[in-house]
Amino acid sequence: MSTVIKGGTVVTADLSYEADVLVEGGQIVEIGKGLKGDEVLDATGCYVMPGGIDPHTHLEMPFMGTYSSDDFESGTRAALAGGTTMVVDFALPNPGESLLDALKRWDNKSTRATCDYSFHMAVTWWGEQVFREMETVVKDRGINTFKHFMAYKGALMVNDDEMYSSFQRLAELGATAMVHAENGDVVAELTAKLLAEGNTGPEAHAYSRPSQVEGEATNRAIMIADMAGVPLYVVHTSCEEAHEAIRRAKQNGKRVWGEPLIQHLTLDESEYFNADWDHAARRVMSPPFRNKKHQDSLWAGLQSGSLSVVATDHCAFTTEQKRYGVGDFSKIPNGTGGLEDRMPMLWTHGVATGRLTPNEFVAVTSTNIAKILNCYPKKGAILVGADADIVVWDPKKEKTISASSQQSSIDYNVFEGHHVKGLPRFTLTRGHVAVHDGEIRTQEGHGAFVAREPNATVNRALSTWKELTAPRPVERSGIPATGV
Amino acid sequence: MSTVIKGGTVVTADLSYEADVLVEGGQIVEIGKGLKGDEVLDATGCYVMPGGIDPHTHLEMPFMGTYSSDDFESGTRAALAGGTTMVVDFALPNPGESLLDALKRWDNKSTRATCDYSFHMAVTWWGEQVFREMETVVKDRGINTFKHFMAYKGALMVNDDEMYSSFQRLAELGATAMVHAENGDVVAELTAKLLAEGNTGPEAHAYSRPSQVEGEATNRAIMIADMAGVPLYVVHTSCEEAHEAIRRAKQNGKRVWGEPLIQHLTLDESEYFNADWDHAARRVMSPPFRNKKHQDSLWAGLQSGSLSVVATDHCAFTTEQKRYGVGDFSKIPNGTGGLEDRMPMLWTHGVATGRLTPNEFVAVTSTNIAKILNCYPKKGAILVGADADIVVWDPKKEKTISASSQQSSIDYNVFEGHHVKGLPRFTLTRGHVAVHDGEIRTQEGHGAFVAREPNATVNRALSTWKELTAPRPVERSGIPATGV
Amino acid sequence: MSTVIKGGTVVTADLSYEADVLVEGGQIVEIGKGLKGDEVLDATGCYVMPGGIDPHTHLEMPFMGTYSSDDFESGTRAALAGGTTMVVDFALPNPGESLLDALKRWDNKSTRATCDYSFHMAVTWWGEQVFREMETVVKDRGINTFKHFMAYKGALMVNDDEMYSSFQRLAELGATAMVHAENGDVVAELTAKLLAEGNTGPEAHAYSRPSQVEGEATNRAIMIADMAGVPLYVVHTSCEEAHEAIRRAKQNGKRVWGEPLIQHLTLDESEYFNADWDHAARRVMSPPFRNKKHQDSLWAGLQSGSLSVVATDHCAFTTEQKRYGVGDFSKIPNGTGGLEDRMPMLWTHGVATGRLTPNEFVAVTSTNIAKILNCYPKKGAILVGADADIVVWDPKKEKTISASSQQSSIDYNVFEGHHVKGLPRFTLTRGHVAVHDGEIRTQEGHGAFVAREPNATVNRALSTWKELTAPRPVERSGIPATGV
Amino acid sequence: MSTVIKGGTVVTADLSYEADVLVEGGQIVEIGKGLKGDEVLDATGCYVMPGGIDPHTHLEMPFMGTYSSDDFESGTRAALAGGTTMVVDFALPNPGESLLDALKRWDNKSTRATCDYSFHMAVTWWGEQVFREMETVVKDRGINTFKHFMAYKGALMVNDDEMYSSFQRLAELGATAMVHAENGDVVAELTAKLLAEGNTGPEAHAYSRPSQVEGEATNRAIMIADMAGVPLYVVHTSCEEAHEAIRRAKQNGKRVWGEPLIQHLTLDESEYFNADWDHAARRVMSPPFRNKKHQDSLWAGLQSGSLSVVATDHCAFTTEQKRYGVGDFSKIPNGTGGLEDRMPMLWTHGVATGRLTPNEFVAVTSTNIAKILNCYPKKGAILVGADADIVVWDPKKEKTISASSQQSSIDYNVFEGHHVKGLPRFTLTRGHVAVHDGEIRTQEGHGAFVAREPNATVNRALSTWKELTAPRPVERSGIPATGV
Ligand SMILES: [Zn+2]
Ligand SMILES: [Zn+2]
Ligand SMILES: [Zn+2]
Ligand SMILES: [Zn+2]
Ligand SMILES: [Zn+2]
Ligand SMILES: [Zn+2]
Ligand SMILES: [Zn+2]
Ligand SMILES: [Zn+2]
Repeated sequence: MSTVIKGGTVVTADLSYEADVLVEGGQIVEIGKGLKGDEVLDATGCYVMPGGIDPHTHLEMPFMGTYSSDDFESGTRAALAGGTTMVVDFALPNPGESLLDALKRWDNKSTRATCDYSFHMAVTWWGEQVFREMETVVKDRGINTFKHFMAYKGALMVNDDEMYSSFQRLAELGATAMVHAENGDVVAELTAKLLAEGNTGPEAHAYSRPSQVEGEATNRAIMIADMAGVPLYVVHTSCEEAHEAIRRAKQNGKRVWGEPLIQHLTLDESEYFNADWDHAARRVMSPPFRNKKHQDSLWAGLQSGSLSVVATDHCAFTTEQKRYGVGDFSKIPNGTGGLEDRMPMLWTHGVATGRLTPNEFVAVTSTNIAKILNCYPKKGAILVGADADIVVWDPKKEKTISASSQQSSIDYNVFEGHHVKGLPRFTLTRGHVAVHDGEIRTQEGHGAFVAREPNATVNRALSTWKELTAPRPVERSGIPATGV
Repeated sequence: MSTVIKGGTVVTADLSYEADVLVEGGQIVEIGKGLKGDEVLDATGCYVMPGGIDPHTHLEMPFMGTYSSDDFESGTRAALAGGTTMVVDFALPNPGESLLDALKRWDNKSTRATCDYSFHMAVTWWGEQVFREMETVVKDRGINTFKHFMAYKGALMVNDDEMYSSFQRLAELGATAMVHAENGDVVAELTAKLLAEGNTGPEAHAYSRPSQVEGEATNRAIMIADMAGVPLYVVHTSCEEAHEAIRRAKQNGKRVWGEPLIQHLTLDESEYFNADWDHAARRVMSPPFRNKKHQDSLWAGLQSGSLSVVATDHCAFTTEQKRYGVGDFSKIPNGTGGLEDRMPMLWTHGVATGRLTPNEFVAVTSTNIAKILNCYPKKGAILVGADADIVVWDPKKEKTISASSQQSSIDYNVFEGHHVKGLPRFTLTRGHVAVHDGEIRTQEGHGAFVAREPNATVNRALSTWKELTAPRPVERSGIPATGV
Repeated sequence: MSTVIKGGTVVTADLSYEADVLVEGGQIVEIGKGLKGDEVLDATGCYVMPGGIDPHTHLEMPFMGTYSSDDFESGTRAALAGGTTMVVDFALPNPGESLLDALKRWDNKSTRATCDYSFHMAVTWWGEQVFREMETVVKDRGINTFKHFMAYKGALMVNDDEMYSSFQRLAELGATAMVHAENGDVVAELTAKLLAEGNTGPEAHAYSRPSQVEGEATNRAIMIADMAGVPLYVVHTSCEEAHEAIRRAKQNGKRVWGEPLIQHLTLDESEYFNADWDHAARRVMSPPFRNKKHQDSLWAGLQSGSLSVVATDHCAFTTEQKRYGVGDFSKIPNGTGGLEDRMPMLWTHGVATGRLTPNEFVAVTSTNIAKILNCYPKKGAILVGADADIVVWDPKKEKTISASSQQSSIDYNVFEGHHVKGLPRFTLTRGHVAVHDGEIRTQEGHGAFVAREPNATVNRALSTWKELTAPRPVERSGIPATGV
Repeated sequence: MSTVIKGGTVVTADLSYEADVLVEGGQIVEIGKGLKGDEVLDATGCYVMPGGIDPHTHLEMPFMGTYSSDDFESGTRAALAGGTTMVVDFALPNPGESLLDALKRWDNKSTRATCDYSFHMAVTWWGEQVFREMETVVKDRGINTFKHFMAYKGALMVNDDEMYSSFQRLAELGATAMVHAENGDVVAELTAKLLAEGNTGPEAHAYSRPSQVEGEATNRAIMIADMAGVPLYVVHTSCEEAHEAIRRAKQNGKRVWGEPLIQHLTLDESEYFNADWDHAARRVMSPPFRNKKHQDSLWAGLQSGSLSVVATDHCAFTTEQKRYGVGDFSKIPNGTGGLEDRMPMLWTHGVATGRLTPNEFVAVTSTNIAKILNCYPKKGAILVGADADIVVWDPKKEKTISASSQQSSIDYNVFEGHHVKGLPRFTLTRGHVAVHDGEIRTQEGHGAFVAREPNATVNRALSTWKELTAPRPVERSGIPATGV
């Protein structure tokens, strides 16, 4: 059975043009005028864009014997409702756990996904086993991105020497390094100090992770990646300091990407000063929301290309779970939602204001990350042969965001009350019309794993340059016969 | 008759993949495996890329009663020989001359072109007539880019108020501003001082136009463009100061592009210190060559995206013409060649070293400028429906650059003796195979003018933002009844 | 008769220590413990500091047939009341007027001064006469600072070539360049546009002079000064863009200073949005007040040393005079007060908050500018032999600023209602106790002109460097016999 | 007995003036014209300046069972010969050793000093004992500066949490943090990699410590100091990356100082490529010499004030000791000389070229560090009451630097063959004329320890600001009754 999307304007990262899109067997099979298909989706007045890719989610993430509330079913359903057709989740080994065992756990959870997905591998500890298994993960499991936590001391955090070793291993394997960049030592010290001083409320979460600690860690990760000769992707870049470090690196020709979250682009730190504890606690995530200066920086980064991807870090903890931290902000689980709202919020605040062109919108929500992840043009493209992950975007459609009407399973929404204009009319996941003009038709288990090859073009170019400029010994005759 | 390019790897700004390309009627009609055509071009081991676009040439440019030596025939022939399939030349009105009359002169010259071309309109004076004719140029003549000279005082230079007026007019018309950015007042003062002090040799040309005067003018043009609300394209960005100004602008979300020349990327100021007067004089162009610090900056700009396009400013003055300036460097005609060497030199120093990926090579030689000029994907693309402006690039083919074997009509080559690896096996201009494995088969007059629409996507986004943030009057009741 | 200041802590730009200060014959004659004198001033609990120097005032400035309301008597009285013991006013030639004639007019006005003063010479037009007279002004009139207006097109503004010529002349004379840095062309264009669009209120004054136009002009002046080889002092640096240009220049080793005003440090643009026209119009000055981002930048500049001097641009236009601009903001006279409030406001917001040390307070209110103006240690010092221009500063003394109780003759105060803590207990001008514990004892005509030598140490160092790095001709044999 | 320095020009950080200086009892007792004394030193044609202070030496430093070859006698003799009258050495506790015990060892060594000296305390490990003893060191031992090594992993290095704890302790005590800023983890990794690849020569020392690792660590130390609220002094700032981090910090109002070494200002990395192993090995120090870009950055930092102090890191290892590292660069002891040459080299390359004024020379060699160390104006000043640590500087005196004629006990000199112009005619240490017109008259044991108080003015200001802006809890009623 074929589906034709008729009468719309195809909008890619590259260009915009009027054309119908014909889908069959889960792929785009033809693009052109006057196409016919079994099922017709009317795209009149709409933009036909690559479905969004959210490269930063934590679905059904284990936490203190429980889990983040959106699993691969509800999470991907929320994603599709908002025009996102692929998510990339982080497989997190426990301390000492085999990378492959951790992946098995994630494989199990992801069987219920309603759209395609991939995994980043987290390197949460270091040892000969990890070193060895990384090769298997890359070559056999189709994963070329490895995340390192520079925060969460005593849990996920790795030290500089471990990061260097891991990064160097990634360079050998043609894979890409990722970091959660906050100085975990300093966060731990500030946290202890704040609690000791009676700063126990959710606002102290923000106090404990100021933009300086994020900027520092970002800068450090960049240096280590440069020394190891590996491209670096910095997740959830939330502040000017981190962005500045990324810009400075790029200005020196380094291969670094930054990922602002939709939350940091549109919400600010004043949320934490809300008199309602629940309101504030629900917004607790790391890095925390920042002020307007930082927001302006992030937007400009998207405009100039110094930041590359808009994500969500979707990690949905319920109000009940958030209340673990009453009396001690450090016990509030870190994370919040966004999967369903990323694209409408970014369109409303980005494209409708003129900050971004529609093509740039596609670039930062889909195409750029598909290239970075090395799954382009299977994903992130409206091209013949590409997967039919498509959103038919209606720029006139509007709504007010509310938890009461959302797909996500959490009991609140950090964008509650925000009005958006620009929403999916249809969302297709590998050809299946999962969102049909407001009606949700997702299929549990429809989603498939997306394997991704190493040695992307940027990795190869960087390796060439590093080889060319590697240290060379000086030819010397006059070496003294012996040391003392 | 159809032509098929078989067995190569298609490389675009976006991605690389193996496919044949079928050409008919001057356009690409099919891309895929196993294609057949009347004529077969063997692309085995080659990259099939969009032909280069050089957005900065001065062919047969009038100068002191004579002309720059490459005209539209020899110039475009040299272009094709080096893999460039489109040039954009500057139509330069004389003081007081109608823009339309100037265009007529350029129309006449360009009839001999062997590949496609377009024009930028130069605004060399200001008045009601210019203001009016700009609309005609945009709407009837298909030109959406207007250049302003901030140097060449007493000749082409316009002042800040004129630039502001012109830029504002461009904002209204949906067109884009361009600048030659050097502070003409200061250049004139330094020139006079140098000559008075006996600094008359070609090296004094470089002394008279230090990077500071370029950086300043770039910064000024950016501010004026920001105030007028128009995108800005800075031609021949040669130094860190100018690049810094562009980066700083982009970091604030401004719409600015910078264009390094292949000469500035690969040659340096030491050329002017050559003991041979002719050697030095042949390299006289504005801005002059810079030192290694500036080169590093330009390369990093291409890598990071803060610079967008590599051009040549091809303006071929012969040794005989250069000697007008014996005894007075300010009389040496400014300009030199590069059209034939831009792509091989950039490939050799950029892609082969790992500084650029092959995709980035395509972006900065072709696709980016096609988008900026708003003629993408007619040009700058390997897509069905695009013009068959294609270079089949052989990364193994090598040569040593020499004036003795070049297409360009000048009697020297600034890259003389440079070894390049990476050269066209075939170059197609709208389907015609103009370069066939070392043989030149260009057709005089084959080239056609490329009209370009205003109101590109970036122009529209910028206008939206400027409207949204425009000054608003304060509502006031308490205005005093009268002034004194 | 001698006066001894007893029991205080001497605070200089350099250090703090407990000592008495003995004054006789208008000079400091001894510093030490247990000194005796005819008159005793009790400095217990106080800081004994060099009197403030305000290098930027416009007293009795001619304007449309009238004058700014504070003349040399009331202006210097206000200065002394606030702890400032020297002012430097700008002598402004009319177009075509002899510099010496302008100075004569300023000589006449300044006879009434109650504290010492000096002049900066403004270069408001250019010609052979100006070139010649500059030497007389430097050598015979003791003036080594020359100001250039880059704004006020059609009135005071000079163009880039004139600035370069003047700057080069200053380099020869060992004098220092000053600029009012705003792009006058663009200000004029924006003003016309705003008025045409009905933006006629005082807030449009701010719209017409955005920070971008100041940043651009600052950057341009720096480049021109660098080319001419002269140190540069940028008056009223009000914004991050201008500060950034200054920082960037300093980071390249250039000799540039920036001068924030106390108004820009403590007041912001929201003043212009006040519903009361008079309130807004009274704050109209150039550059206009900015937002918090700019304020933070200026404070950090004082802390880091990238900005050097805090001034006022005191130019007191009355409400009546301000109302010239009802219905047309461009007719509102530019200028406001501050002489009396500069030091208490800076102490309150700078020292009391910990942003500045007391020594840094002295540096930026007095010592730095004394060095820049080359009148240190006659002024700006607590040293034996220095002029007894002293403020005995009581950090406990407080008041609420109000026009009703001020010395200045204007009918309002832009700091109205601001509470300050830290005020003069005594102010001495060349030994005369002009402020005595709240009582004003100024003497009309007591003030004397302070002559200032050229060739200060920074000027000499810069000239040495410029000579060392000046362009040198290349030795060449192979010059072709003749041009064509 | 009194000594009068007659006929010279007193040059301080502040100003220059002609005066005689009378010295008695080790102090300056009078400054003025026509002074008389028992002994007369003829300063005609000379500058009478505060003696230099070198805040960074390692005299008789323990190393692998032996010691760096200059001890407090020869080291301070070399210092005096070059115009330096005070040194500050680093007391280095062994792992687990009491701070006080380490100080005792340094007390013992320093008894032989020929000029005054002070100590910085190094924090080489962390624990309750260190925490407690820091108070004693500050309050009883007169030491207010504590150094932390971010490199030398497994030996002196401390981690981020230890640094934070120590910095916070310093903030409480009113003391100042210092860092040796290189990322020790990455240096260790690079070292192992280089050795494994056969890069064993001295040039690999430079490869193992690229500027990036210094920049990173500097940036990190700044962040930690900011979080802890303590001023930071960065020793041996050698590169643009580190300087950039310092500039950026200062631009945000942070209290940070940088210290370039005379070696990094005047020598470059090409020394390591010398074909003579000994030549290269003798230059091995950390950070290593850099290229010209970094040198330019350091000079500009001195000019602009973003860098504050020129030091030497004098740590004199002999050729014999250097040869420990034949076959393994990581075994070459780090350190070299400079005490004797710092001031002549800086004068020659700084003042004589016009990069620095004579006053700036005094600032960066003496006065700035005296203020930072809080021993001004006892040291670093030509003021009545100050210690008579004076250098009478003859700008005409010249020599070619050579190990054969130096005071230092090492068998080579890294400045061998460099010609300097500007040398001491006399050097006085607390009144004793230790250098008399080429003759060395130092007295072993003459030198005394200089105690330095905490709570300098900058520390107090910073604490005020940090208190003012400290996190405050949000007042909240709506806290949920209980967590889950
Ligand atoms: Zn994270
Ligand atoms: Zn996450
Ligand atoms: Zn040009
Ligand atoms: Zn050109
Ligand atoms: Zn002004
Ligand atoms: Zn003024
Ligand atoms: Zn060190
Ligand atoms: Zn050291």
